[in-house]
Amino acid sequence: MVTPTGTAELDAITARAAAAFPIWRASDAATRTGWLRALADALDGAADELVPIADRETRLGETRLRGEVGRTTGQLRLFATVVEEASYLELTVDDADPSATPPRPELRRLLVPVGPVAVFSASNFPFAFSVCGGDTASALAAGAPVIVKAHSGHPELSRRTAEIAANALVAAGAPDGSLQLIEGREAGNALVQHPVVQAAGFTGSLSGGRALFDLANGRPDPIPFYGELGSVNPVVLTPAAVAARGEALASGLAGSFTLGVGQFCTKPGVVFVPAGAGFEASVAAAVAETSGGALLTDRITDAFPSGIDALLTDPSVDELARGSAGPDGARPIVLTTDAAAVAERPETLLEEVFGPVTLLVRYASDAELHAGLRAVPGSLTATLHSEASDDVADTLALLEARAGRVLFTGWPTGVAVTWSQQHGGPWPATTSLHTSVGATAIRRFLRPIAFQDAPERLLPLVLRDAALAGLPHRRNGVLRVPAQD
Amino acid sequence: MVTPTGTAELDAITARAAAAFPIWRASDAATRTGWLRALADALDGAADELVPIADRETRLGETRLRGEVGRTTGQLRLFATVVEEASYLELTVDDADPSATPPRPELRRLLVPVGPVAVFSASNFPFAFSVCGGDTASALAAGAPVIVKAHSGHPELSRRTAEIAANALVAAGAPDGSLQLIEGREAGNALVQHPVVQAAGFTGSLSGGRALFDLANGRPDPIPFYGELGSVNPVVLTPAAVAARGEALASGLAGSFTLGVGQFCTKPGVVFVPAGAGFEASVAAAVAETSGGALLTDRITDAFPSGIDALLTDPSVDELARGSAGPDGARPIVLTTDAAAVAERPETLLEEVFGPVTLLVRYASDAELHAGLRAVPGSLTATLHSEASDDVADTLALLEARAGRVLFTGWPTGVAVTWSQQHGGPWPATTSLHTSVGATAIRRFLRPIAFQDAPERLLPLVLRDAALAGLPHRRNGVLRVPAQD
Repeated sequence: MVTPTGTAELDAITARAAAAFPIWRASDAATRTGWLRALADALDGAADELVPIADRETRLGETRLRGEVGRTTGQLRLFATVVEEASYLELTVDDADPSATPPRPELRRLLVPVGPVAVFSASNFPFAFSVCGGDTASALAAGAPVIVKAHSGHPELSRRTAEIAANALVAAGAPDGSLQLIEGREAGNALVQHPVVQAAGFTGSLSGGRALFDLANGRPDPIPFYGELGSVNPVVLTPAAVAARGEALASGLAGSFTLGVGQFCTKPGVVFVPAGAGFEASVAAAVAETSGGALLTDRITDAFPSGIDALLTDPSVDELARGSAGPDGARPIVLTTDAAAVAERPETLLEEVFGPVTLLVRYASDAELHAGLRAVPGSLTATLHSEASDDVADTLALLEARAGRVLFTGWPTGVAVTWSQQHGGPWPATTSLHTSVGATAIRRFLRPIAFQDAPERLLPLVLRDAALAGLPHRRNGVLRVPAQD
Repeated sequence: MVTPTGTAELDAITARAAAAFPIWRASDAATRTGWLRALADALDGAADELVPIADRETRLGETRLRGEVGRTTGQLRLFATVVEEASYLELTVDDADPSATPPRPELRRLLVPVGPVAVFSASNFPFAFSVCGGDTASALAAGAPVIVKAHSGHPELSRRTAEIAANALVAAGAPDGSLQLIEGREAGNALVQHPVVQAAGFTGSLSGGRALFDLANGRPDPIPFYGELGSVNPVVLTPAAVAARGEALASGLAGSFTLGVGQFCTKPGVVFVPAGAGFEASVAAAVAETSGGALLTDRITDAFPSGIDALLTDPSVDELARGSAGPDGARPIVLTTDAAAVAERPETLLEEVFGPVTLLVRYASDAELHAGLRAVPGSLTATLHSEASDDVADTLALLEARAGRVLFTGWPTGVAVTWSQQHGGPWPATTSLHTSVGATAIRRFLRPIAFQDAPERLLPLVLRDAALAGLPHRRNGVLRVPAQD
């Protein structure tokens, strides 16, 4: 049960975050990474307690949830590495040039945290995109205290995680108010409009995300709202790929769209397949061997069949195959249509449906394929399975224009947490030109400041010459990596 | 006279920009920098023709305008250097690790241009923040065609500049539609909402910028709107600084707030001065030697006296001194108030007034100073004149929280175009966590894409190993600068 946070309580919470902010902002790399690692250690240590709560509230199963705890603490440790490496500070110095016209002053620039950050957690990753998930990890790494709006799908887990996290941070020496929790939709709406809050991260539905995006932008002083809102994740199979490895592709697809009961934001939701190549039969065979499971929440459980019904109302759409029903759960289903229908009615056929369903879109020519792809909205991922003999330049250009990550083997449902990950794409995949997963997610919660002709004693420590000698930085246009010398 | 762009014409213009986009996106560094430098050369070559038009329309004078042409072409050339240096691409590779749990794919990431960009030009920099100004230069450098909304204050200059620029680009081999012009407020509103346009840059007033910001965010598919909207640029003088060099500070201030007839967005608009230190007398003497001049437009000419009148209605505000009136121009004026009044009525006393006016704010203690500073809205700059003996930690923290550039000598009206410049600050100074001047302004018009397990033949050239060997990049977490090896 959600316990809504009241107005007075929210004010107290934001006041604590505001008080914690200068301490986070001023924390040096060793201190801040110590806090991040203490938080990761505490979560790992509490996995035996947290995983059963998560399983009871989300029905995702112990194996998946234990893996997710590891991913979550791995994220926190990756961001500690990012802070230590220090490139994220974008340290840049231009020395004075009195002989220039006009004379050029000395400028030294770095990135600093924006201020307290609001994080709206997701239903489908109760650890990795929740209280201590990627948004929280990247905000803390940036030096920003975090206020998390708990997801109503796992309130008890959210509370206990927040408690363990807050205690771990304080025990490690971080200030009170470093990581706090609120509950309830109204409180969430108030949070994103609160003067103390300077940025927000969100993972969830298009409608919920759009409403918060509008509130954030409607403030007297708008703040950046980093939302991940929805994605159909197009896949294209060329005739040559189907001819070469149709059965493997069919079984890979069946595994990917049913993984986590089809509740990943990177689920392949629309798959362009060559007409008459026999791929449908391979998919039907593979899907017959899958089984469903319990969906995350009652709302998702209700929305799943109605989403399928909405697709089936289109005259072009047929049911191809179903898996077996899991215990009280959603049953995997594959639907088919054709590229001309998708090009004509994208608003019906290309709406994201959460759960184990995917739509095969038959195309008979590159022209049909490209017309269909032009109708696909911005997505987190796009996948192209082709052979070396294929000419895919135009197809690839259409996919690149629509996605933040383009895959050439495998399936999009895995998201590696690394330096080069990009989890974000054109609207509505995300609201910004940034990733929400991977090292560069930290840039969302930072803003630049330049110091002009500052006496050394008033410069931030990392901008003084002694510190720069040991850190990656740019001086007079030349990028230097001291560790590389 | 403005010639408003009609709907059909706007559609034709955006269609040309859309057609030009893939060519810009695919252009390699040598090609793109060739286009940028050809544009710079053409503008330099046309200065004798353009400067008189600019002077007739803006009344800014030949000396200033010739300098501004140089700044504008210098900006274009700086961005050519940025493109050649290639760090802006954020090339990042994580090699595959099949032994990881789960197995890690290969990921290669770079930044690509977002698509065609709208640029709204400013009245007060007819070259440097106009048709071929900083927003245009950074968008073209990113690989994005540009559609400029001309400022109504200099329509003829805008047309002729756009013509020369478009011709120079085509002559250098760039596609038709690389740089185009529209006119009229309605067309500008339509531009920022047009599906082809993927980002917008703006320099202008808070009200005009807010309206366009709301349109950009209200789209079915919101786009980033990078606006620079207004700034009061607080200055703090400590008692020790006034004691040590009060007259020099007074004459520096008088020069800065009257420079360009007070029409720089970095004009020092509010100056915190120690009470009873005699600084007012020094300012009065210095201001008496200044003279005014013609303001840019009729609207600004009308708004200047009414802005001053609005300040004078506050019971705390007095007139301290005036300069002499220039030919048919605005007369410099200095007003005074106290920190308590500013803290109580910031909405009256801290509204930006364009033109040669500044407000001295007396403070009798650090507590009064800090209360006043807390009321200061986000600004492009903040300036602190202090002595080594001063303890300015708390004052500096308040200034840093409110500005993107903090100065410790001189005055904020000069903005060096360099790698480390930061021209942007908390709302309403700018709408984003980016600069609009200097090398990193390019990041506003780029978005990341990651390629997962791509065969080399399908990777962008710069992400292939052969190219990476010669470019700054990060591999498996380690930043490498080949030129440094």
